[in-house]
Amino acid sequence: MSKYRVLIDANDEKGLVYKVSTVFYNNDLNILSNSEFVDKENNKFFMRSEVDGDIEALELEKYLKEVLPSTSSIKVIEPKKKNIIIMATKEMHALGDILIRHESGELEANILCVISNYEDLGSLVEKFDIPFLSISHINLDRNEHEDKILECLSLYDNLDYIVLAKYMRILTPRFVETYSDKIINIHHSFLPAFIGANPYKQAYDRGVKIIGATSHFVNNNLDEGPIIAQEVIHVNHAYSWRDMQRSGKDVEKVVLSRALKLALEDRIFVYANKTVIF
Amino acid sequence: MSKYRVLIDANDEKGLVYKVSTVFYNNDLNILSNSEFVDKENNKFFMRSEVDGDIEALELEKYLKEVLPSTSSIKVIEPKKKNIIIMATKEMHALGDILIRHESGELEANILCVISNYEDLGSLVEKFDIPFLSISHINLDRNEHEDKILECLSLYDNLDYIVLAKYMRILTPRFVETYSDKIINIHHSFLPAFIGANPYKQAYDRGVKIIGATSHFVNNNLDEGPIIAQEVIHVNHAYSWRDMQRSGKDVEKVVLSRALKLALEDRIFVYANKTVIF
Amino acid sequence: MSKYRVLIDANDEKGLVYKVSTVFYNNDLNILSNSEFVDKENNKFFMRSEVDGDIEALELEKYLKEVLPSTSSIKVIEPKKKNIIIMATKEMHALGDILIRHESGELEANILCVISNYEDLGSLVEKFDIPFLSISHINLDRNEHEDKILECLSLYDNLDYIVLAKYMRILTPRFVETYSDKIINIHHSFLPAFIGANPYKQAYDRGVKIIGATSHFVNNNLDEGPIIAQEVIHVNHAYSWRDMQRSGKDVEKVVLSRALKLALEDRIFVYANKTVIF
Amino acid sequence: MSKYRVLIDANDEKGLVYKVSTVFYNNDLNILSNSEFVDKENNKFFMRSEVDGDIEALELEKYLKEVLPSTSSIKVIEPKKKNIIIMATKEMHALGDILIRHESGELEANILCVISNYEDLGSLVEKFDIPFLSISHINLDRNEHEDKILECLSLYDNLDYIVLAKYMRILTPRFVETYSDKIINIHHSFLPAFIGANPYKQAYDRGVKIIGATSHFVNNNLDEGPIIAQEVIHVNHAYSWRDMQRSGKDVEKVVLSRALKLALEDRIFVYANKTVIF
Repeated sequence: MSKYRVLIDANDEKGLVYKVSTVFYNNDLNILSNSEFVDKENNKFFMRSEVDGDIEALELEKYLKEVLPSTSSIKVIEPKKKNIIIMATKEMHALGDILIRHESGELEANILCVISNYEDLGSLVEKFDIPFLSISHINLDRNEHEDKILECLSLYDNLDYIVLAKYMRILTPRFVETYSDKIINIHHSFLPAFIGANPYKQAYDRGVKIIGATSHFVNNNLDEGPIIAQEVIHVNHAYSWRDMQRSGKDVEKVVLSRALKLALEDRIFVYANKTVIF
Repeated sequence: MSKYRVLIDANDEKGLVYKVSTVFYNNDLNILSNSEFVDKENNKFFMRSEVDGDIEALELEKYLKEVLPSTSSIKVIEPKKKNIIIMATKEMHALGDILIRHESGELEANILCVISNYEDLGSLVEKFDIPFLSISHINLDRNEHEDKILECLSLYDNLDYIVLAKYMRILTPRFVETYSDKIINIHHSFLPAFIGANPYKQAYDRGVKIIGATSHFVNNNLDEGPIIAQEVIHVNHAYSWRDMQRSGKDVEKVVLSRALKLALEDRIFVYANKTVIF
Repeated sequence: MSKYRVLIDANDEKGLVYKVSTVFYNNDLNILSNSEFVDKENNKFFMRSEVDGDIEALELEKYLKEVLPSTSSIKVIEPKKKNIIIMATKEMHALGDILIRHESGELEANILCVISNYEDLGSLVEKFDIPFLSISHINLDRNEHEDKILECLSLYDNLDYIVLAKYMRILTPRFVETYSDKIINIHHSFLPAFIGANPYKQAYDRGVKIIGATSHFVNNNLDEGPIIAQEVIHVNHAYSWRDMQRSGKDVEKVVLSRALKLALEDRIFVYANKTVIF
Repeated sequence: MSKYRVLIDANDEKGLVYKVSTVFYNNDLNILSNSEFVDKENNKFFMRSEVDGDIEALELEKYLKEVLPSTSSIKVIEPKKKNIIIMATKEMHALGDILIRHESGELEANILCVISNYEDLGSLVEKFDIPFLSISHINLDRNEHEDKILECLSLYDNLDYIVLAKYMRILTPRFVETYSDKIINIHHSFLPAFIGANPYKQAYDRGVKIIGATSHFVNNNLDEGPIIAQEVIHVNHAYSWRDMQRSGKDVEKVVLSRALKLALEDRIFVYANKTVIF
């Protein structure tokens, strides 16, 4: 008996649920959970099922391909630990939260290594027997620095996600395209408010009563990729922008870990610069 | 072309989604939305679909009955305004919120009448050209009072829901059983904390930092019916219990209206003293 | 015995609390509540006290003026119902919420009249025996239309606040300056995200997971006045922008009523395009 | 120049603010922040001020004692790192969150040691060069076990707080009284709902739509001490009780760290089994 996550992304048409459930039924699969969504505006159909039964993944995929429109995307995924690399700069909270979750065994992931443009986080990461690579950007232009990182990343051919746990440098289009829909960022703002530098200072100056954090996939336009998760906290006039920053850290780490969990459980579809999350 | 909400509640077994979607497919129905849930612990299957197509409701129900286990509950509902009666005592906020929603046309309901054990709310209700019945409990025992209300309710043979919008009297088992799973209450507490009288005073005495409200169906045990919706707000030491009560009203009306909306849209399954909500 | 709200807004210097509390003590006043805030960045001091005692408001104000720096703003306010005018367009939810609160007696305000650029809301407002003025903008340019409204407003010399309960037209600088810090707006967005037209459509297109509403004073730059209150709700991919709009209404009315309450209780200081709220 | 936190807890009477601020003024102290609260029901006055100036703590305390009623509690505290001991059992999330905050330098505390009744957490704690003491309860009765822990605690004469980071054993009255108002617990429930064993199972069985966590001081009655902080998250029918438990962990750690921060910053007054928090 094997367990699979089946992810289907298709142009909507009548009979899709019927066709998929017929394949499941004919192969004697048990449906553990099932979620569907139709975006009528874009005529798109999304489905995520958890099934178990006595069948090979490739076989199940083949049967689904036979009945579904040829333009469909069909994934049959066997649940197992995914491989992630974390990139960070100097702040400890988001990285530390992931490390503790990893250590406790709750994270469905292997952390291959942590990369930083500084050395500060090395002593924390190495406590957990995880490789730490400090790749300084000092005296390098953006491309030279990224070349070094990309070279390092290219050593891992089984990489599933790159997690930017407060990595404070902008990635070039070249970098982003290489890992399209695989880079998860935490932005310390309730996007799309306060795009860009020091959002807490911007929020303070604007006198907002709520601040937030946003986790999103990274695309070419900084801070504009598909949003995965958002959360907020209330603040008031007595908060300096540094108080907002301190309080914001608690939201940032929660939102990033929530987004990472969704990705590791194959719950996210990306399309039209948005996400469907089951 | 007709539009239906199909609600299925069955003992779980392999092939249920297949069987239902086959009926939909064979009758050329279009699935607008689809939600399923399997409670593995209790081996129960729940499904709610919105479909449209060229078929009679009774016909669709018949086809579903033919393929589903005989113990299943199958409802094919044509969306239309439901008939509700509101019961209240003296407070205006929860009732007022429903009246405004009704007046604005956003409520999928006809308000047949409002019943109160006092006369205070009459002038508000009558502004909206809705019948107001004051049935005083003074000098009556509980059964005599309820007899009068039940007699009044019995005039409406098409009643879908009774909404207790801060009706401050306890209903007898006889009353509740007559309208089983049809009475929606708002309890001014985050159940199951502070069951019983004056929950805000109890919450104040306990020094809680959060208060809440719970909307639930009413069953025989006061405050213990299936929960439909809950919401909370933060409070602090500076709140007297009357401040909590005042702030709590805003939560109460929001939660009750949310629960009512779920009921009117046929989104609630009740089983095992709990709800499944799609 | 009289009860006063004392509001002091001064340049910060040592001894301000001492000086104010000395005046209170020497005049045998009882402090019921007391809030202070120092904005160190701008060197500003804010204080709001509720006191009671046997003294005239003007006398108390005089004593405070004698001890405080001449640049201070000092207000001694006797709590009483404030006079408000509500402006709306066609939507009923925010206006309806205020009308019900007013009817129930919880609002510390007299509603002098409701003004709309359409006639739709007339039947609702008149139920509550409140004057309704429909001042159409059809065939008028912006200034001509505002002339008519300003003429109408000028009849009320005791106006404390104008509440824009989803009034969907932009006010000119002339209008805003006439009622500086007296116009309370509800913006159907979590400002400063989605400034401008149809924020729900903007939020939908961006794929956000949280939407919100912001109440603020109106100044010359649309949507950029000092923020009084904000609130949010979670949404997901299944929300169309119309669903967001429908759900957003519940947040809008809550936030506007919360802001209005703060204003009516004299809890808001405005400075540097921000608010201090006690 | 020294900086102090001044905490005053007195029976309410006219002139308290005047008297305190006179002492501050006469000693040329600068008020950085100031919070007061009067509980009228219990006739209690609470005040917390942050001041700086050129004075000794004992001197300032003496001056305040001279002017305030003899029944008042007066504390003049110089901000510095407090000494804490953490007790845990097997779960890593709450402990891990505190360890990361400590490592990042954001916690105003020295962690003297971590005590557990199992050995599981040892490898985590020792990564951070913090002493780990495993004191097993196996084959010991409750008093014998506590004797061992108390003996260990008694070695630290400068202990400020004991943090129960999911320590899953009940403490005896003897233990609790020894460290009255010094033991901070996280209860994995929205107290007072679901007191006792396995609150998540209880919450699941009741079908709640919101779960929460409560941090409180421990007193003799388990789960009934003064509440410091509470937080909640929404759940739905699809959550098993183990899902609730998993999601609950994120709330638990946030609430415990928030409560600990309040304690370390001397922001909590305890009275009448409640807290006043500034």
